[in-house]
Amino acid sequence: MTNADDEADAAEANGHPIGETRWVLPGGHVPVDSTGPEPELVSHETLCVLNAGSEAATLEMTLQYANGREAGPYPLTVAPERVRHVRINDLIDPYAPPLGRDYGVVLESNVPVVVQWRRQDTRQAANATLSTVVYGE
Amino acid sequence: MTNADDEADAAEANGHPIGETRWVLPGGHVPVDSTGPEPELVSHETLCVLNAGSEAATLEMTLQYANGREAGPYPLTVAPERVRHVRINDLIDPYAPPLGRDYGVVLESNVPVVVQWRRQDTRQAANATLSTVVYGE
Amino acid sequence: MTNADDEADAAEANGHPIGETRWVLPGGHVPVDSTGPEPELVSHETLCVLNAGSEAATLEMTLQYANGREAGPYPLTVAPERVRHVRINDLIDPYAPPLGRDYGVVLESNVPVVVQWRRQDTRQAANATLSTVVYGE
Amino acid sequence: MTNADDEADAAEANGHPIGETRWVLPGGHVPVDSTGPEPELVSHETLCVLNAGSEAATLEMTLQYANGREAGPYPLTVAPERVRHVRINDLIDPYAPPLGRDYGVVLESNVPVVVQWRRQDTRQAANATLSTVVYGE
Repeated sequence: MTNADDEADAAEANGHPIGETRWVLPGGHVPVDSTGPEPELVSHETLCVLNAGSEAATLEMTLQYANGREAGPYPLTVAPERVRHVRINDLIDPYAPPLGRDYGVVLESNVPVVVQWRRQDTRQAANATLSTVVYGE
Repeated sequence: MTNADDEADAAEANGHPIGETRWVLPGGHVPVDSTGPEPELVSHETLCVLNAGSEAATLEMTLQYANGREAGPYPLTVAPERVRHVRINDLIDPYAPPLGRDYGVVLESNVPVVVQWRRQDTRQAANATLSTVVYGE
Repeated sequence: MTNADDEADAAEANGHPIGETRWVLPGGHVPVDSTGPEPELVSHETLCVLNAGSEAATLEMTLQYANGREAGPYPLTVAPERVRHVRINDLIDPYAPPLGRDYGVVLESNVPVVVQWRRQDTRQAANATLSTVVYGE
Repeated sequence: MTNADDEADAAEANGHPIGETRWVLPGGHVPVDSTGPEPELVSHETLCVLNAGSEAATLEMTLQYANGREAGPYPLTVAPERVRHVRINDLIDPYAPPLGRDYGVVLESNVPVVVQWRRQDTRQAANATLSTVVYGE
C-alpha cells in the first residue's frame, strides 16, 4: 500500500471526503494592466481546487457579471489527490470570458473539493496579492 | 432552455439556493488618501454580492461605527444570476457615510446570496489589496 | 422606534443574534519595523469586533505563543450595534504583550459577535495589508 | 489554579475544544525569488496552527501537486495552549518538498486545532502579503 492510498483513506476516514460540492466567489475583477516579467508577474486571478478524495472530480465553472449574460460553463477536471490552479485569464473553451469587468464564479463539482481564490495585481510596479477561501456549502 | 436556466436549476438542485441571508463584516476602514489615476486606483472598500438564484435579491446594508449612530440602511438590489460590487465610498442615498473611521457592515437579504469584501489601499504609491469572504449565517 | 431598534430586531429576527462566542486567530506576528507617518502607517495587527446585538458584549482576549506562557487575558467590551478595532500593539492592561514573535489569539465573548483580523506591514516602504475573518464557532 | 488552566477550561467549556481535525489549503505556491534581508523578508508561505486545548496535538501534513506524487507526510506537534508557525520552505524531514510549483496542503490532527495560512512575496521589492483561514471540517 502506498502513501497515496494511506492519505486517501485518512481523508475519507470520517465517512465522507473533505470539502463541499458547491463553491461561490463573488468578488472577481481581473486587472487589465501589468508590470514585470511574464508570465509569473502578469496580473491575474486564479481559482485553486484541491481534490483530496480518491475519485476524479468533474467541475463546471460559470462566470456571472453585473450586466449581461453569464460566461461558460467552463469544464474542469481534477485528478484524485491533486490540485489544479486555473487562471481566469487563460479560459478559452468554449470562449474567453471578458476581462476588466466585475464578475463572480459559481462552481459545481460531482465530488467534494476545496476551493481557494488568489489574485495578483501588478499594475503599480509592486505586486499586490490577496487570497481567500471562497464560500462553499 | 438557456444556459442561464440550467445554471439556476443547478444552483438550486439541492433544494435550496446558494448562500446565506445575513452577512457581517467587522473590519471596515476606508483610507482617505490615494495615489494613482482615478477611478481604478483610488483607495476604496467594496462589498461584492453574488445572487446565484433565480429571484431578485433585495438587501439592506447598515454601517456600524465605534462611536455614534449607525448609517443607513442603504438599499441594494441584485438581479438573478448577477453580481454587484458596491464601493462604500460611493454610497449616497439616504446620505454619504463618514469615511476615515472604523466601521462594520451588517447585510440582510430576502434570499440567500454570497458576500465578499475587497479593499484597495493606494496611500503609499504601491497599492495594497486585501479580500476576505465575510461572515455569513 | 428608531432605525437602531429596527436593526437590532432584524439582527435577531431568526431567533438568535449574529455571530459566535468563541473566536481563534492562529497566525499573528506584529512586524517590529515601519515606514511612513504615524500612527496611520505604523505596522500593526488589529482585531475587529462587531456586536450586532442589543446587549453589550464582554470579551476576554488571550494571546498564545510558540514558547512560554500566554499573555492576558485582556478584557474588551463592545457596546450594542458598535464595532471596536483593537491594535495588538496598543494592549497594555494588565501588561504589554511581547511583539516580533509568532502568536495566536483566543477570544471568548458572553454574547455572539463577529471577529475579523487585519494586518498592515510597512517595513518595505509600500505597505502590505491582509485580512481574514478568523475562525469562529 | 493558573490563568493557563482557566483558559483551557474556558476553551473546552462548551463540551468540546476549539477547532477542527481536518484542514485543507488548495492555493499554495512558494515564490522562488526574494528581495530584502533574510530571514524576515524572504518569500515564504507559512501554515499557522493554534492548539487551544489541554492535550498535545499530533498532526500529519501532506502536500499535493498538480502533477506527480504527493510529498510527506510531514509530522508536526503543537503543545497545549501554543501556536506553531511552519514555513513550507523549511520542511526537510522526510525530505524537502519541491518549491516554485502549485501545491495544496491536507492536515490531519488527533485533536481539534485551528489553522491559518500566510504568504509573503518579496519578488518585487515591496513585499506582498496575504492570509486566509484555511478550510476546516
